[in-house]
Order: sequence, then structure tokens, then C-alpha cells
Amino acid sequence: VPPYEDGENYLEHFITLANRLADAAREIILPNYRKHTPVEDKPDHTPVTAVDRAVEAELRRLIWLAYPDHGIIGEESAPCQTDAEYIWVIDPIDGTKAFLCGIPVFGTLIALTREGIPILGIIDQPVIGERWLGVQGRPTTLNGARADTKTCPDLNRATLCATTPEMFTGSLATNFHRLTNAVKMTRYGTDCYAYGLLASGFVDLVVEADLSPYDYFAHVPIIQGAGGIITDWAGRTLTLHGKASCVVASGDRNLHRATLDLLA
Amino acid sequence: VPPYEDGENYLEHFITLANRLADAAREIILPNYRKHTPVEDKPDHTPVTAVDRAVEAELRRLIWLAYPDHGIIGEESAPCQTDAEYIWVIDPIDGTKAFLCGIPVFGTLIALTREGIPILGIIDQPVIGERWLGVQGRPTTLNGARADTKTCPDLNRATLCATTPEMFTGSLATNFHRLTNAVKMTRYGTDCYAYGLLASGFVDLVVEADLSPYDYFAHVPIIQGAGGIITDWAGRTLTLHGKASCVVASGDRNLHRATLDLLA
Repeated sequence: VPPYEDGENYLEHFITLANRLADAAREIILPNYRKHTPVEDKPDHTPVTAVDRAVEAELRRLIWLAYPDHGIIGEESAPCQTDAEYIWVIDPIDGTKAFLCGIPVFGTLIALTREGIPILGIIDQPVIGERWLGVQGRPTTLNGARADTKTCPDLNRATLCATTPEMFTGSLATNFHRLTNAVKMTRYGTDCYAYGLLASGFVDLVVEADLSPYDYFAHVPIIQGAGGIITDWAGRTLTLHGKASCVVASGDRNLHRATLDLLA
Repeated sequence: VPPYEDGENYLEHFITLANRLADAAREIILPNYRKHTPVEDKPDHTPVTAVDRAVEAELRRLIWLAYPDHGIIGEESAPCQTDAEYIWVIDPIDGTKAFLCGIPVFGTLIALTREGIPILGIIDQPVIGERWLGVQGRPTTLNGARADTKTCPDLNRATLCATTPEMFTGSLATNFHRLTNAVKMTRYGTDCYAYGLLASGFVDLVVEADLSPYDYFAHVPIIQGAGGIITDWAGRTLTLHGKASCVVASGDRNLHRATLDLLA
């Protein structure tokens, strides 16, 4: 266990562990991909499989071995040590529905927060073998190569992604519909993959609702380190202290502002 | 050029050519994937790129070299020799929007019709390297391994796919919405990939509208050869003589009937 003084070194240890976690997730997910995994419905009616649970259990084991005093928040089990300085926020399979359909846009999300602020994030797509890594203050990478967002100041030229129109209800649906009418093109069915594609400059906007912290914390350092911006629908920073469930990510600050105006 | 007598042999020649076409499409598409390809808007407001056009031109060239008296219908240029016994129906990139976003669910679609009936179909996803092949009277394969649809007689247990809710307007939207309320789960953003996943038993239903023949002919032999059924929304067979733009594909005949009832 490394000392916790500030500097490059402590971040390197965290990056090494985060990569090891993503490797471990791949090893469990890949042999189970397209194997007709049995599904359970959770109380919130979202699906979960033994694969989700096995990945989360293994990541928790590896985190506790390395940093027994860190906290952990995961999708599939109760939060632990949430008063710790460092908290890992993990989603073993973001996009379980895509995983079940055999569509490789799901991914393992791994985030590390310090004092509630996300400082490290990984999106790992195991089938295609793509890993986005974002670290506070550093350029974001996709499989080690630098990822940069794309300039696109105008809504009418923007490509927008969201996982499903069903995530928007009531006034959120009205406001989201106003946005889809303003952009050039809307693409659904994207899960975490859209945030990676935004970091790499292939998508201009990701606007989602009905999310939990484990759905978006990994994206924060990835998008910021690629030159983009990610906030809630009111423009607020995403931290563990907030309770945001609605997210706007953009590769362009002007586009982000125009989007917030439309969603307001 | 082989003789055209009926029997196994003439089909083998067609399969060889169809695979060669899919290989040629991959060779053009892969070096252009995620390269920020410039986009034009067609008169129907769908996007097209120089890559779509280059693939279609190459496939037309190869078909004409092998079978100068065959007809060709493609997405990107005018139909030729449409009174021929054999007509190739091709979509160089089905899912151009997915291609532009860098989401590997697009594909090259290659179909061969005889007297208007689709007898051979390929869905080729070049990035993941997946090729579904369907031939009239034979089992469907994915990369050479047999593909089989899944039994799922009940709507409330079914997984439904469609490329986008925006493809349904007016009464079609009302009827489709009735279907989404009846199924277990709806997944958008799937393009041609959903039909392959249905043939392989990971998706139960694909219901779409606003399609052209080059969007669905390749799927017909693939889904039939995997044990499934594909018709228009009125339950009619899909042939070149029909002008279907609405399609229902199902891995299960009872589910197909229940879906038609709901959509009627």
C-alpha cells in the first residue's frame, strides 16, 4: 500500500489499480458474453445477472486488498466506508440490456473520487477491447492514444446521444424533445459508449436522465481530460455531494451552454 | 461465368461472389472507420459519405464482372436491369449514422433475389468481424457457425429492437407504442445488427418502418434460415414485387402473430 502524499506517484498507483480492475472485469465478462445469461429483475425493474454480481464482487475484493480504508459505491451492493477520503464508484456492467442483447456498447465503469470529486475514470468495452482512461489534470487516452473532443458550437450541426427516450419523463421529456428537434441527429442505444465516443470527438452531446452516480462518475475525468464539459442539467459540477440524476456532456463549451438553455 | 441450371452448384457460385463482395466492402470501410468522414445530406435528409459511394461502386463493378446480365438495386445509385431473373440488392453501409458516430452496429447488406424472392443474404459488420450468411433452404451461419433463433412465444418476455423511435409517425407510432408497452424491453440504435442478433437468438423481435428494399432483403434468408419469420406489418412476404416499408422479424412464429395483432 503506497503512501498517500500528493504528487504524481500516488496517482500512478491508483491508475495501476484501476487498469487491473478493468482487466479483471474483462476476464469475467468475455467468457459470459452471448451465452444466454439468466436475468433477474431488480426492484427498480432494471435487469441484473450473475455476471454483474461476480464482476462487482471481484472489483471490491481487489480494491479492499490494495486500499482497505477506501470507500466503495457499486451498483449491485451496499455502499461501504462512504466517509473515506477516497471512494471508488463502480458499475460492473453499464448497459446490462445491451450485454444481454449481445450489442457491444456496454462497459465496465470505474471511478475514483477524492473528497467527493471524481479524479480518475475508466470506461472499458471488453468485446471490442477499448479502454478510455481519464485522470484529473492529464490528457484522456483511448487504449493509450490521446483522445480529444470535437469543436461543434452549433446545435443544428450536433450529434446527440442518449441510451433511450424512455429515460425522460414529464417535463424532462418535453425539454429533451425540444433538444432533439434542435440538433442535427439523435442516436439512441448508446449506454456508456457514447461518453467515450464524445471524448474521442465522434459525438457532440450526450444528454441523459434517471442516472445514478455509478452511471456517470467515470465519465467526468474522461470528458474533462479530452477537452469537454460534463454537468447536471442545471450546469452544476458532478460530485458525490450532489444528487444529480440528469447529465449533459459536451465536447464544446458553447454547445454545452446552448443545450442547458434549451433544457432549462 | 457459371451456367445457370438449378442445383447446388449455381448457389455456390453466388455465395462465393457474395462473400467476395463483403470482403471488398470491409477493405474500403475499415481504413475509413473513425476518420471523421465528411458527410453530405441526401434529398431525403439521410446522410451519405464518399465511403458509402465507394463501396457501392466497387460492389457493382464486381457483380457486373461476374454476372453482366444480373440486375442491381443499391442505396446510392440508380437501379439497373431490374427485369433480370437475378437482382442483387445492396446497401453499402446500413447505419451510416452509426458509422459516423463510430458505433459498430452498422453493416454492409448484400442480397440476391431470384424472380423477386430473396434467396441469399449477408449482413457484414466489418469492425467486430461478424458475417451472417443466409441461403434459401440452408441453415444460417454467423462466421461459419450455425445461428438459430430463440423461442419466445410471449410478448411480455420479448426483447424488441428498432433503430429509432423517429422512424414511426402517425398511426404507425401509435401502434408501435402499443407494442413497446407490451414487451419486456425495447432497445433502440440497432440498425442491421439487430436482425443478425435475432438470427443468433439474442433478440426476439425487430419491428421497423420507413425502410427501403435494400434495408431488409438481406435479412430475409438470414432470418428464415435461422428458424425465424420476417414479413411486413400485414404479415405479407417480402418480395421485390411488394413495396413494403414496414417490417416485423421474429424468432418465434407465435410471437410474430401476437405482434402483428398488436400492430394491426
